[in-house]
Amino acid sequence: MASKIKIHSPATVANMVCGFDVLGFAVNEPYDIMYIEYKAEPGITIVNEDAYNLPTDPLQNVAGAALLALLEAYDKPVGFKLTINKQIKPGSGVGSSAASSAGAVAGANALLGNPFTKEDLVRFAMNGEKLASGVKHADNIAPCIYGGVTLIRSVFPLDIIKLSVPDLFVTIVHPQIEVRTADARSILKQQILLKDAIKQWGNIAGLVAGLEQGDYDLIGRSLEDVLIEPTRSILIPSFDQVKKISKELGALGGGISGSGPSIFMLSKNEKTAKAVQLAMGQIYDSIGLSCHTYVTTINTNGIQLMEAS
Amino acid sequence: MASKIKIHSPATVANMVCGFDVLGFAVNEPYDIMYIEYKAEPGITIVNEDAYNLPTDPLQNVAGAALLALLEAYDKPVGFKLTINKQIKPGSGVGSSAASSAGAVAGANALLGNPFTKEDLVRFAMNGEKLASGVKHADNIAPCIYGGVTLIRSVFPLDIIKLSVPDLFVTIVHPQIEVRTADARSILKQQILLKDAIKQWGNIAGLVAGLEQGDYDLIGRSLEDVLIEPTRSILIPSFDQVKKISKELGALGGGISGSGPSIFMLSKNEKTAKAVQLAMGQIYDSIGLSCHTYVTTINTNGIQLMEAS
Repeated sequence: MASKIKIHSPATVANMVCGFDVLGFAVNEPYDIMYIEYKAEPGITIVNEDAYNLPTDPLQNVAGAALLALLEAYDKPVGFKLTINKQIKPGSGVGSSAASSAGAVAGANALLGNPFTKEDLVRFAMNGEKLASGVKHADNIAPCIYGGVTLIRSVFPLDIIKLSVPDLFVTIVHPQIEVRTADARSILKQQILLKDAIKQWGNIAGLVAGLEQGDYDLIGRSLEDVLIEPTRSILIPSFDQVKKISKELGALGGGISGSGPSIFMLSKNEKTAKAVQLAMGQIYDSIGLSCHTYVTTINTNGIQLMEAS
Repeated sequence: MASKIKIHSPATVANMVCGFDVLGFAVNEPYDIMYIEYKAEPGITIVNEDAYNLPTDPLQNVAGAALLALLEAYDKPVGFKLTINKQIKPGSGVGSSAASSAGAVAGANALLGNPFTKEDLVRFAMNGEKLASGVKHADNIAPCIYGGVTLIRSVFPLDIIKLSVPDLFVTIVHPQIEVRTADARSILKQQILLKDAIKQWGNIAGLVAGLEQGDYDLIGRSLEDVLIEPTRSILIPSFDQVKKISKELGALGGGISGSGPSIFMLSKNEKTAKAVQLAMGQIYDSIGLSCHTYVTTINTNGIQLMEAS
């Protein structure tokens, strides 16, 4: 068994348009790079190799919180050293905290000889999400660990379903503003109209059927959110324009990634995804807001683990 | 081409638990029997061969309303004689009016040499539903015409998706009481909580994934309705008991068929479906309410058309 493991833990997109709170997917880029190895004393040591100045106290670090939950379940005294080289910018809305939490426990599990199931790992990693946002949610954690598009049908009890997915290209733009998750949450209406909810569940049913059947047109028609996006998108400059132009260029559809500020668009081919990327950059250039853009694909395998020594 | 066509038009179950207003399925029994043939004068003549005393004026009969919509679109003077031998009791909640409307236009289309698509037929038949209930809904019409489990993602514009479906046995009980559709509709809450809606769309996503993947356990776990059933089921005597005992006997799950009073339960095998049927009968016997019960299977082909001469 390896004594040191290298971890590639991917970015993820939660709240997949009509799949608010229940659908998320993993992408191939960007991904965090981490190393996990045993250390002599029980407990957790965290070393940050990036410039984000995240806490190294395991109780204050999302990866630490996840590892502590794993150690509690493992019930034998073990010590880990976790080295984090974060590539996914915190607060960008593409699952930066989930990549840390999920990657850490997936690596630790491999080091220990895989005593835990993927579902166990999701449970441990949700402690990191709780530390980051106050809520144990799994819609970034689950796709990070399972790969592909995952449905979290229920969190209590945990019920994760990995969906089939045809080839899809993903364009992501991260305008360099901050949207606080707490703000994105507080502006949501807690009461909604039944008729709007019916539209939303017609769309999520269409999206799941489209993914399972590999029907791109159906995926596109179903990528519509009548409930959350109209409220949350006002926190993201030029959101409507990004969406309109992306669809004019041939994107199937898309929306807010997580609670923003990143926006994602799905396309059937790379050419469209790149045209969308260019247009996104131009839109933010024109208003003088800098942004990062990516073109990537759906990561169907989730976290990648390699022997480091 | 045949000059007279025999039609078997199946019963359907709308509002498939978490799929309120958007999911429905067709069953193999019961089905209405109809005959359609040309008549000399343009227009529609309806002959009832059953004991239900439904109107024969085409403007007042759901099949007539559907045929009139078809004739308007056909735009050449044609006359049809439609003979109806209804087997699906009106008001039972298993798509009796949809079977008449959909069967009539499917038969007429075959007689005319199939100038219309299935989607056209759904549009025509919805005029029958409008006459019956005041609303153009397609969640009985669509499965009747397409067969299997259908998703009506949207009515305006019409978007119907036929889902894959594993072998399923269906037990239906029709307690002999009347639930007026208007009552079933008026007691629905128009405002709901976002958190309940999220649960509902997690379940419908799980149900669609379960059907597409042939995962019976997932189908069972997803057959949960936190929004409509708690309100509507109070109109159906012994509903909770029927559901509880059916699931104890091994049924995957089920709920109200349409707006009731019929209740349906899905099972993986015939033995379970028959045990459920027996228990349902005993429950209504014990409270002195007569009922009809059926054990049938999902009808994957929809309306069946045969040459009658």
